[in-house]
Amino acid sequence: MSDTPGSGDSGSCPLALLVAYGGSPFAGFAAQPGRATVQGRLEAALEIALRRPVKLVVAGRTDAGVHALGQVVSFDAIGREPSPDALKRSINALVAHGIVVRDVRVARPGFSARFDATGREYRYRISTQRVPPLFTANVSWWLHRDLDIEAMRRASDLLLGEHDFRSFCLAASAEGKRTYRRLDAIELTEEEHLGERCLTVRVVGNAFLHSMVRVIVGTLVEVGAGRRDEAWVVDALGARDRAAAGPTAPAHGLTLWSVSYSPEVWVDGGFEP
Amino acid sequence: MSDTPGSGDSGSCPLALLVAYGGSPFAGFAAQPGRATVQGRLEAALEIALRRPVKLVVAGRTDAGVHALGQVVSFDAIGREPSPDALKRSINALVAHGIVVRDVRVARPGFSARFDATGREYRYRISTQRVPPLFTANVSWWLHRDLDIEAMRRASDLLLGEHDFRSFCLAASAEGKRTYRRLDAIELTEEEHLGERCLTVRVVGNAFLHSMVRVIVGTLVEVGAGRRDEAWVVDALGARDRAAAGPTAPAHGLTLWSVSYSPEVWVDGGFEP
Repeated sequence: MSDTPGSGDSGSCPLALLVAYGGSPFAGFAAQPGRATVQGRLEAALEIALRRPVKLVVAGRTDAGVHALGQVVSFDAIGREPSPDALKRSINALVAHGIVVRDVRVARPGFSARFDATGREYRYRISTQRVPPLFTANVSWWLHRDLDIEAMRRASDLLLGEHDFRSFCLAASAEGKRTYRRLDAIELTEEEHLGERCLTVRVVGNAFLHSMVRVIVGTLVEVGAGRRDEAWVVDALGARDRAAAGPTAPAHGLTLWSVSYSPEVWVDGGFEP
Repeated sequence: MSDTPGSGDSGSCPLALLVAYGGSPFAGFAAQPGRATVQGRLEAALEIALRRPVKLVVAGRTDAGVHALGQVVSFDAIGREPSPDALKRSINALVAHGIVVRDVRVARPGFSARFDATGREYRYRISTQRVPPLFTANVSWWLHRDLDIEAMRRASDLLLGEHDFRSFCLAASAEGKRTYRRLDAIELTEEEHLGERCLTVRVVGNAFLHSMVRVIVGTLVEVGAGRRDEAWVVDALGARDRAAAGPTAPAHGLTLWSVSYSPEVWVDGGFEP
């Protein structure tokens, strides 16, 4: 985008940031007193760049250890702000190692990174090597066993569509909440990254409950390892009880890959692909 | 391979280890007193596993910061040793974090990981993103500029074949040595790893001088950045003077990818693909 000085044309439209971060250095996204968090570091950098406190709205809050390639955060601009490109450069110079602002865009008034999101995509990597991974060790779950990928694919098909995913949610966080969500796609792909093999589970849906992708992966692995058959996934879903589904897969295999928005929310075309 | 107890059948045949390691934790491959090195850590683990000192022969010595996916080391077995699979498990349990023994194989008498190698393949990753890489930051050189990849390809073709590569070698290490080497392939491929884009330069040859791949990459980048034209590469080669070629690209972009051997050197079929 062109590097226009000031933001006379964007007025007080909200700004949206496309952010990548590694999970290891941070105690999750959400700000916590005395802990290194992504929100804490981003808000501190924005406060220096804009000379006023900023409170971020986030598309997909991530837990400690979870990575993000395409997280989106937004905040309301007030009067004259730096241009999006100037702001991107400032924040990247100010923000902690381990966080990169990939793009900054202007959204229409009222935009919220969270409530305007129409879909989220997560990717979970399972290292399928016999020996431990080295270059992908921090971004994949090394299972050290063979998996029946076709059985996992059949099981994952049974989770598609709108369901009450209470069984696939951190129990405490589900209390008193609506736990219906819609899964649009689960794809399992064998990939190679940096010379190391992995099985990537791509999960796309409208919104996700706390730990939902990690419980889905933990449940699919029960099937892939032959400890459960595919039909058990339907029983787990129907039970509406966290204890009925598989274990929670470790955080470091998970990446928030991208968040989608309707094109109309953008003043300037939205994030670069 | 089957996990036969002892090594009655392999007698005192040499053993070869296929080894991966990250470059960051080590002061290079070669043992140095008081420094953490790959050779030092491997020999210490082998000494515990075999209850005797072991001196390793290495296929491609790597400098500090250079990674290896398919390094090969060998040593002579003496009488009864653990089976290759048992030895692999022992070393992986004993060796430092950051080193993984991927496979152990039995070679024919007289085998040397260094002198029997018929070819070596290195890969150098250049991060081509506009924003700094995050997940590939430790394994790629972030240039932060556009490159003319076609010009780099044409320049790389001019380096193929057998030449005196004295200009492409750390000056001090070339003194009084034969500096002819044969380059069989240089391929430039745009790749994506862990969601981040890079340009991978794959370099295959019979053997390499000190820093040779890094000087080749540094020279190709001069052409790709438009600071030199392709013909300059021929002048640089002909000058037989380190100062005539481009700068040495940083170590952390380089990985020793694989080493090749004639199938006849193996007693047991060689490393798994």
